[in-house]
Amino acid sequence: MRRSTQAIDVSLASVAVALILLIAAAWNPVFAQEPLPSWNDTPAKARIMDFVKATVTEGGNGYVAPSDRIAVFDNDGTLWSEQPYYTQLGFVLDRVKALAPRHPEWKTKEPFKSVLAGDMKGIARGGEKGIVDLVMATHAGMTTEEFSKTVSDWFATARHPRTGKPYTEMTYVPMRELLDYLRANGFSTYIVSGGGVEFMRPVTERIYGIPPEQVVGSTIATQYDLVSDVPVLKRLPKIDFIDDGPGKPVGINKFVGARPIFVAGNSDGDYEMMRWTTAGEGPSFAMLVHHTDADREYAYDRESAFGKLDKALDEAERRNWLVVDMKRDWKTIFAFQ
Amino acid sequence: MRRSTQAIDVSLASVAVALILLIAAAWNPVFAQEPLPSWNDTPAKARIMDFVKATVTEGGNGYVAPSDRIAVFDNDGTLWSEQPYYTQLGFVLDRVKALAPRHPEWKTKEPFKSVLAGDMKGIARGGEKGIVDLVMATHAGMTTEEFSKTVSDWFATARHPRTGKPYTEMTYVPMRELLDYLRANGFSTYIVSGGGVEFMRPVTERIYGIPPEQVVGSTIATQYDLVSDVPVLKRLPKIDFIDDGPGKPVGINKFVGARPIFVAGNSDGDYEMMRWTTAGEGPSFAMLVHHTDADREYAYDRESAFGKLDKALDEAERRNWLVVDMKRDWKTIFAFQ
Repeated sequence: MRRSTQAIDVSLASVAVALILLIAAAWNPVFAQEPLPSWNDTPAKARIMDFVKATVTEGGNGYVAPSDRIAVFDNDGTLWSEQPYYTQLGFVLDRVKALAPRHPEWKTKEPFKSVLAGDMKGIARGGEKGIVDLVMATHAGMTTEEFSKTVSDWFATARHPRTGKPYTEMTYVPMRELLDYLRANGFSTYIVSGGGVEFMRPVTERIYGIPPEQVVGSTIATQYDLVSDVPVLKRLPKIDFIDDGPGKPVGINKFVGARPIFVAGNSDGDYEMMRWTTAGEGPSFAMLVHHTDADREYAYDRESAFGKLDKALDEAERRNWLVVDMKRDWKTIFAFQ
Repeated sequence: MRRSTQAIDVSLASVAVALILLIAAAWNPVFAQEPLPSWNDTPAKARIMDFVKATVTEGGNGYVAPSDRIAVFDNDGTLWSEQPYYTQLGFVLDRVKALAPRHPEWKTKEPFKSVLAGDMKGIARGGEKGIVDLVMATHAGMTTEEFSKTVSDWFATARHPRTGKPYTEMTYVPMRELLDYLRANGFSTYIVSGGGVEFMRPVTERIYGIPPEQVVGSTIATQYDLVSDVPVLKRLPKIDFIDDGPGKPVGINKFVGARPIFVAGNSDGDYEMMRWTTAGEGPSFAMLVHHTDADREYAYDRESAFGKLDKALDEAERRNWLVVDMKRDWKTIFAFQ
């Protein structure tokens, strides 16, 4: 008795779902809208769309099975702004200030002293070691859940130094449309960033539609521990993996376990990931976001402290990678503009 | 013109998909079948089904949002047999034999000498260092793609020493049904195994329906390199991460970025993952597969060299984790029986 009742329930539910799909297909304006509306009608848009259309055209030369439609995106400077400094550095600076009352010794100890004095040149003088000290002081020594909550709370209140907008609104509308367009065509979309994976995961689903398990990034060592017999993961002051430059293909292989066919980046830190993605046997596509719009965003490339684009820009021409010119190719950059 | 044509094409395709779903819902016998048919009607099956039904019942106490329905499964001894030794050890032994002609020094050098002589006690005398030497000699020194092909080729021909069946048929039918059942109820299913991630990924999609990106395992260090200007990832003779014991929650946090609500294991190596999974705020479920059937599979627990189950068995009672008795609870174990 129970068996057949359940079968009928399931069938009815499925019929309802199918009917909803039918109605949605016939009426939903999304289906009738041209994709990538914030892109100008320049060759960049056409090249992207030609590639994607080919991957879904069964029987064609460019066809790619859905399970192989893997797209990877750098984050800083590719999906959201990385100027005047990386978002995660903004987090570090704010956290040092917030934690300073618990660390009176920071008043006289570099690189903390420079941070508390707002002295960016002093921070720069500390070099890589100074940055690592700052990261460890603000990213380690707590549980993964405590860190995640700290990050979420910070994103809720922190503001971009130039626009005064939340950092989560500093995302590029054309790139969010590109993520949507790829997913609508059966692609899986991943972030592959030099940023910390646990710094990004609390917000990527909401701002990009990318769930935690599709975020690849740098990791800090963590350790299982019991606190009052409750299992926790503690973040240790030790780098586990740097997902940048030659680390990006390593990270993709480790987390995703397959070679992507679509890659988007904006700096030399994405070069090896672009080489590896485009060295597969089948069709592939690589694009660079070139920051050319000082009015609406920023203009920088070969000389920039953040997101330096030099070697990869030369190679893009040689290898026929698409270079997206933000000023020329994008109708809108930020949603708030 | 182009715009409206495309819109019509998409709508027609969607209508077709919806119609197929309608027909499938009405006629597909899968919808009418009771889940977990290879499980006996013992309390174990009922407990699993009660939990899953609660997670999908909106408005109920046990409801869990689809994005949080994450299930993690150990592999060796939980999804496939780990006796008389781990499948991956079978691979190591076969690879040493296959590579021996290129390594004449192995004839007199331990632990290789013992492997070539089929002397399992000699291998055991080499201890952990000997095992690491064997793993590195067979798992490193090639590109990731070469290794993947070697693994696939091995699985195609290797046979289980007792049953003479391919290792890929040594999977437990009731557990494959459980994976299907969970997925049908909106769960994401992950493998979280002490085994090498690149040893499992070539077969997990085919035998469990689990794609590469949902396999978490131990990793070897890899390095991006150019060979004749072609980018490759080289496997180095260096452990990157051991996904066992306290490493399992660490691996889940790193790869998945969220706490699971369902966990299945069979040994003390799964204990910390079970503790961490069941320490979340919402509903959770933990189960142990207890190997009690010497006739149809193997019977072992507290004294076993592979898959030792001692502490976790004691804790299961204390913590009300489900202990599945293979002999009592499973109608079928292997599909070929």
